[in-house]
Amino acid sequence: MSTAGKILASGICRSDDHVLSGALKENFPIILGHEAAGVVESVGEGVTTVKPGRDFGIPTGLMYDGTSRFTYKGQPIYKFIGTGTFTEYTVLHEDSVAKIDAAAPPEKVCLIGCGFSTGYGAAINSAKVEPGSTCAVFGLGGVGLSAVMGCKAAGASRIIGVDINKDKFAKAKELGATECVNPLDFKKPINEVLFDMTDGEGVGYSLEVIGRTDTMLAAMASCNMNYGTSVIVGVPPTVSEITFSPSLIFTGRTWKGSIFGGWKSKDSVPKLVSDFMQKKFTLDPLITHTMPFDKINEGFELLRAGKRIWSSGLNGLTWPEIMAFVVFWCFKNPSGEESDSDSDPCELSSPRSTDHTIHNGISLGKNRFYYVASSNAIVD
Amino acid sequence: MSTAGKILASGICRSDDHVLSGALKENFPIILGHEAAGVVESVGEGVTTVKPGRDFGIPTGLMYDGTSRFTYKGQPIYKFIGTGTFTEYTVLHEDSVAKIDAAAPPEKVCLIGCGFSTGYGAAINSAKVEPGSTCAVFGLGGVGLSAVMGCKAAGASRIIGVDINKDKFAKAKELGATECVNPLDFKKPINEVLFDMTDGEGVGYSLEVIGRTDTMLAAMASCNMNYGTSVIVGVPPTVSEITFSPSLIFTGRTWKGSIFGGWKSKDSVPKLVSDFMQKKFTLDPLITHTMPFDKINEGFELLRAGKRIWSSGLNGLTWPEIMAFVVFWCFKNPSGEESDSDSDPCELSSPRSTDHTIHNGISLGKNRFYYVASSNAIVD
Repeated sequence: MSTAGKILASGICRSDDHVLSGALKENFPIILGHEAAGVVESVGEGVTTVKPGRDFGIPTGLMYDGTSRFTYKGQPIYKFIGTGTFTEYTVLHEDSVAKIDAAAPPEKVCLIGCGFSTGYGAAINSAKVEPGSTCAVFGLGGVGLSAVMGCKAAGASRIIGVDINKDKFAKAKELGATECVNPLDFKKPINEVLFDMTDGEGVGYSLEVIGRTDTMLAAMASCNMNYGTSVIVGVPPTVSEITFSPSLIFTGRTWKGSIFGGWKSKDSVPKLVSDFMQKKFTLDPLITHTMPFDKINEGFELLRAGKRIWSSGLNGLTWPEIMAFVVFWCFKNPSGEESDSDSDPCELSSPRSTDHTIHNGISLGKNRFYYVASSNAIVD
Repeated sequence: MSTAGKILASGICRSDDHVLSGALKENFPIILGHEAAGVVESVGEGVTTVKPGRDFGIPTGLMYDGTSRFTYKGQPIYKFIGTGTFTEYTVLHEDSVAKIDAAAPPEKVCLIGCGFSTGYGAAINSAKVEPGSTCAVFGLGGVGLSAVMGCKAAGASRIIGVDINKDKFAKAKELGATECVNPLDFKKPINEVLFDMTDGEGVGYSLEVIGRTDTMLAAMASCNMNYGTSVIVGVPPTVSEITFSPSLIFTGRTWKGSIFGGWKSKDSVPKLVSDFMQKKFTLDPLITHTMPFDKINEGFELLRAGKRIWSSGLNGLTWPEIMAFVVFWCFKNPSGEESDSDSDPCELSSPRSTDHTIHNGISLGKNRFYYVASSNAIVD
């Protein structure tokens, strides 16, 4: 049950960068990008929940068969987390596309496709933060700030932000953090600092929103030994291990993971967009830059420098400028001809321009994919 | 708020043996035993929830100040988990003694003081097993069988018992296990076996009721990667570590610990005893032996041989035969005189008999502690 869609806006997330750095191991070539808003252009047979036209959609999940609909001369091009939104067009399973309010601004609500919902929901749905509780949020990037907002929405009375970049504290406090601490300011481990700050109780809830094994362990050890809950929100590196004493959780702690904030995407995303339109929460403070797609590498540089939270990588108003964005090892076809492979009717065309550049493992430049979509092609 | 009580019956639990083997690191000398039923003999000032006389009590917890009321010539004698029930008399915090139905048989309901409640509650309260779900219980000793009973009571439709001792399977099935597997029968890791048995889904809930790090990890890896919950019920060795990939829980698993089955002991123990008296569950299949206290070492031997589940170590009908049971490095006072220390009014007397024996780190034999309790002495 596939859906072909035009991407109007996509966020740049640290997880995309983790693929570039190698921390997240993925198959290449890959189309990155996984939080976006766009328009449904065509649907496969049997698709009933979205229809072409002005229905806006947010891709939120995976193709069930684990394959990509993108190939080049029979060579599969993978899509990150099954989405792959750094492209003009993409194909997604119907279940991965949520129909949302057509008036919603794509360059903002695209963040509901992953990052905002992940942090906000991790506090509300996964940690199940209770009113009056004390929370600690490790990492005050975009997802971490969303977790702070989630803790506040759930009624936490103390929300302690933890980050080694104190430049992030002002915005964290604006969004609900009652205090912020920099682990580098202490000689003690941060979990001991948090125990001191809570009169030896530990926090009721801790959320790790960085993706580092040391902070995952510190966050877990920071929560109350009998009833504390610690949630791993940051994506752990593919090849990583944590070594810990099981007595840390035996005494009653809960350690859990959270993907997409525990929301049921198809049902929850339209409601979250509706809540946003009703101003129940804001996304504006999370967006530091909105830029056309050909500046996407600048967005990544800002991310790496810790100067941005999220950038909306695509600007709906400058659609003609949008470039496809693909990571690949070697992908050149100077002829610009359509693919001649018949093996997959969803075959991508070759790049229309030859002057692409390879930058940090990313093919940016002028490569555009022309995607031949047909209803036959996109039926599973 | 202290309570002095006479112990009528006490269970022998693997955790007691873990102290003897060194797997659980405790301070010595120590009085072992932690699940018992007895009679309240005197109470300290301010104690309101239990009173002397025929009020039966089950000691269930710790002294808040972390100290023992047992000393010998100023040398503290520790109590295991703050209870220390392998003795004629003990002193407990009021909060650690639950008033129960005086008609309840102490040699059975003593198991509600720890082991039964721990396993049964781990399934019901900690895992929160849902009706129709699939569960796996690793370890089919007394606590594991109680976990099986908890899974059944919670309405699980499949309960898979896991043990390397197939002699335990019949009783597990009698108590609710729908099938049992022996990891030694497979070349694959047991978590892969359980995935095969559940069509690749994994179990909804897994409970580790052994206390080994390898089975804790296997149990966690056996549950569904998105919604599975794994509960550590077995006491981990004090010096132990687990190394694991955080991606195992990042995807949505919950890993948690459970102590005393998540029951609120003071409130829950009387209700559990009441449920037992109303035949809502049975304890009889869990009790393999009931023996007088001077055979306690035989009980431990049976435990180590995997031939018993629980033994009620004390027999209320043979009270005069009960011997105090203390683990210690060196504790001899051949004179049999009362202690002359004034430093602690709760001072224990010296042993009344000198012919104690040291067996496997346990002082058994004829040592009896005569405990001088007074209301003044036992007020915190």
